[in-house]
Amino acid sequence: MSLKDEMLAVAQGARQAARELARASTESKNRALLSMAKGLRKSEKSILTENERDVKGAKEKGLPEALVDRLLLNSSRIENMASGLEGVAALPDPVGETIKMWRRPNGLEIGKRRVPIGVIALIYEARPNVTADSSGLSLKSGNAIILRGGSEAIHSNLAIARVLSEEASRARLPQEAIQIVKTTDREAVRELLKLNEFIDLIIPRGGESLIKTVVEESTIPVIKHYKGICHTYVDEFADLDMAVKVSFNAKVQRPGVCNAMETLLVHQAIARDFLPTMIKKFQEAGVEVIGCPEVRKIAGSILIVPVKEATEKDWKTEYLDLVLSVKVVSSLKEAIEHIHKYGSNHSEAIITENYRAAKRFLDEVDAAAVYVNASTRFTDGGEFGLGAEIGISTEKIHARGPMGLEELCIYKYIIYGEGQIRQ
Amino acid sequence: MSLKDEMLAVAQGARQAARELARASTESKNRALLSMAKGLRKSEKSILTENERDVKGAKEKGLPEALVDRLLLNSSRIENMASGLEGVAALPDPVGETIKMWRRPNGLEIGKRRVPIGVIALIYEARPNVTADSSGLSLKSGNAIILRGGSEAIHSNLAIARVLSEEASRARLPQEAIQIVKTTDREAVRELLKLNEFIDLIIPRGGESLIKTVVEESTIPVIKHYKGICHTYVDEFADLDMAVKVSFNAKVQRPGVCNAMETLLVHQAIARDFLPTMIKKFQEAGVEVIGCPEVRKIAGSILIVPVKEATEKDWKTEYLDLVLSVKVVSSLKEAIEHIHKYGSNHSEAIITENYRAAKRFLDEVDAAAVYVNASTRFTDGGEFGLGAEIGISTEKIHARGPMGLEELCIYKYIIYGEGQIRQ
Repeated sequence: MSLKDEMLAVAQGARQAARELARASTESKNRALLSMAKGLRKSEKSILTENERDVKGAKEKGLPEALVDRLLLNSSRIENMASGLEGVAALPDPVGETIKMWRRPNGLEIGKRRVPIGVIALIYEARPNVTADSSGLSLKSGNAIILRGGSEAIHSNLAIARVLSEEASRARLPQEAIQIVKTTDREAVRELLKLNEFIDLIIPRGGESLIKTVVEESTIPVIKHYKGICHTYVDEFADLDMAVKVSFNAKVQRPGVCNAMETLLVHQAIARDFLPTMIKKFQEAGVEVIGCPEVRKIAGSILIVPVKEATEKDWKTEYLDLVLSVKVVSSLKEAIEHIHKYGSNHSEAIITENYRAAKRFLDEVDAAAVYVNASTRFTDGGEFGLGAEIGISTEKIHARGPMGLEELCIYKYIIYGEGQIRQ
Repeated sequence: MSLKDEMLAVAQGARQAARELARASTESKNRALLSMAKGLRKSEKSILTENERDVKGAKEKGLPEALVDRLLLNSSRIENMASGLEGVAALPDPVGETIKMWRRPNGLEIGKRRVPIGVIALIYEARPNVTADSSGLSLKSGNAIILRGGSEAIHSNLAIARVLSEEASRARLPQEAIQIVKTTDREAVRELLKLNEFIDLIIPRGGESLIKTVVEESTIPVIKHYKGICHTYVDEFADLDMAVKVSFNAKVQRPGVCNAMETLLVHQAIARDFLPTMIKKFQEAGVEVIGCPEVRKIAGSILIVPVKEATEKDWKTEYLDLVLSVKVVSSLKEAIEHIHKYGSNHSEAIITENYRAAKRFLDEVDAAAVYVNASTRFTDGGEFGLGAEIGISTEKIHARGPMGLEELCIYKYIIYGEGQIRQ
């Protein structure tokens, strides 16, 4: 079979499965999720064997230690995947809720009912656990999923997906509810992106080049899970102890993720009071601090480790690492303008005790999540109380921020008539 | 200025305007809408003069009478545009509503606030009134709009858009809230479709080739307003008088629109009772009826005007005209399968008195609007009670069916903290 025919068969199978899944009862979906969890535990050995092949390959290719670690599976990581699926089973079913319903003057009753989107293709580069997590979420929300993981994790992903789709089928749901692209040939992605008759949504999760390819080539709607250039703005009326604590958390607690802070903006009125303590704390934690001339002047007068000068490029960079750019601004207005010029509409925070500044920041900043006095690290499906997430959308349509079960759905109008015709 | 630079300037102006519009008060937006209405009335003469150029051009090009009529403006059509804008001013402002808000165990208060999408580009082929209608809706929902109409209506569209943006500016909203692409060069659309940094959403409204171009070339999210291959299924338990009345309305009341019926499906058990009356009524109204062999057999035994044989292509065709394909099916299941195979997920109706059949049709049919015992012609923003619509989405994400003011918005999360950090 040609690659094209193969992808077509995958997509057609998914469409058929999606029709069945849309009608599946909550009970049968939960039953499948629980057997998927069991199946993962039972297949631990064979999954770990396949994972060893990936890890070995990655080491041979000389991938950085951090990337090899992200690939690595062990008993506890497999247990996490299994209990994640059980967690999804415990969440309420988003499908079938009539969000609202009203009666028109002509007697028509019109309801907006939440339904699955249909067929979702996930293109990702991340850890093998994404295979299990996103399969669980898509199944619970009544969608069929086509998985296309990164080539480094191919053996692990194939082993996990095989278990999941077998268990779905054992629980009497269609095996094609969860399918994985078996080849690592990049042409396969190109073929998928053309199949807009059978695939309803593409979710790309990954780096700049992956997102760019998908956006340029897809004829299917795309919800990007793109970068987070997140800012924390320390206002002139901030509680400075809180500002130190929250900014430190936003940068250091887990620097390699999209909701970590990349740039710290500081009002000039409190820069001399705030920055020495703050920068010292960052440097002690191993954070490389890069700053505007004003920051360097303040730092240079006190600190030992010099602060490098920030270039235009720094303000646009998602470091995903223990690196931070810092800028002194003359006003809240300048802070908001900086955020709109360089930010990625992901997560933005202000630290302030001033009511007006807080209100203005919430009103004017255009981002998926806008915070007053809290760490940007909270932008997460679990932390928001959505139960789980397939990722964090940086799109301006359909869903912004964490995408949980409800965000994997859409609605249809259901209309009850008594023979009404249009005049 | 090159075309590329020109489009870039338009898009950048729109982005700037969108930031201001997002903060504009309901009062100022309504004031602008009312002066836009006044402005249109005051400029009737100059708009009609420009419209004459378009109509003359269309006649010279030999465009069909129906198309020329769609282009034509007169006093009453301009009055309709003006009162449409006043109607939008009277609708509730969708922006700023906190759709829900909750408190997390750690004390964070998380709210989902409705906000404008930002910059919307509308690419359309339709009547000049779309220029005014969609400008009003986007302004009220706090979005900046870039209009790109068809070349046949260019003079009318330019004249209307000029009035609208001048009046917006007079009402102290940014003039760039409403912009129109001044050239009819197709390259301009190609340039717009690349400007994903400044444009948030593309809405194409038009024929197959327009939609195809946009979907293939856009790097910006697209919400298609595509075709409607709508079905009415007359169940074996239908009230046949109602079935005749509703089916007739769905086809004949206005055949040239996307929510008109294109295919009638009839259960075999009542085909002989139902079809003779139904087909006769259609033929008397000038509808060309095309049918499957079973339909032709029934028709042939009774009627005078012969029924042509339907080909595979007929089931896929959006006639937008007084033409109807009719098929006899053996079951509800076959009807649903036919709809999924050939339909465009737009509007689908069942006529039945049977509870189970009604429930199953509502549950299983995947379309933007699914009806029991009513005409598919009701799929419309006004008829649904949304006040107005920018069009009817055939997409599976963001919005399905009529897109009113709320559907031109998205949300952002606003989070109130007290210094929370993530553990």
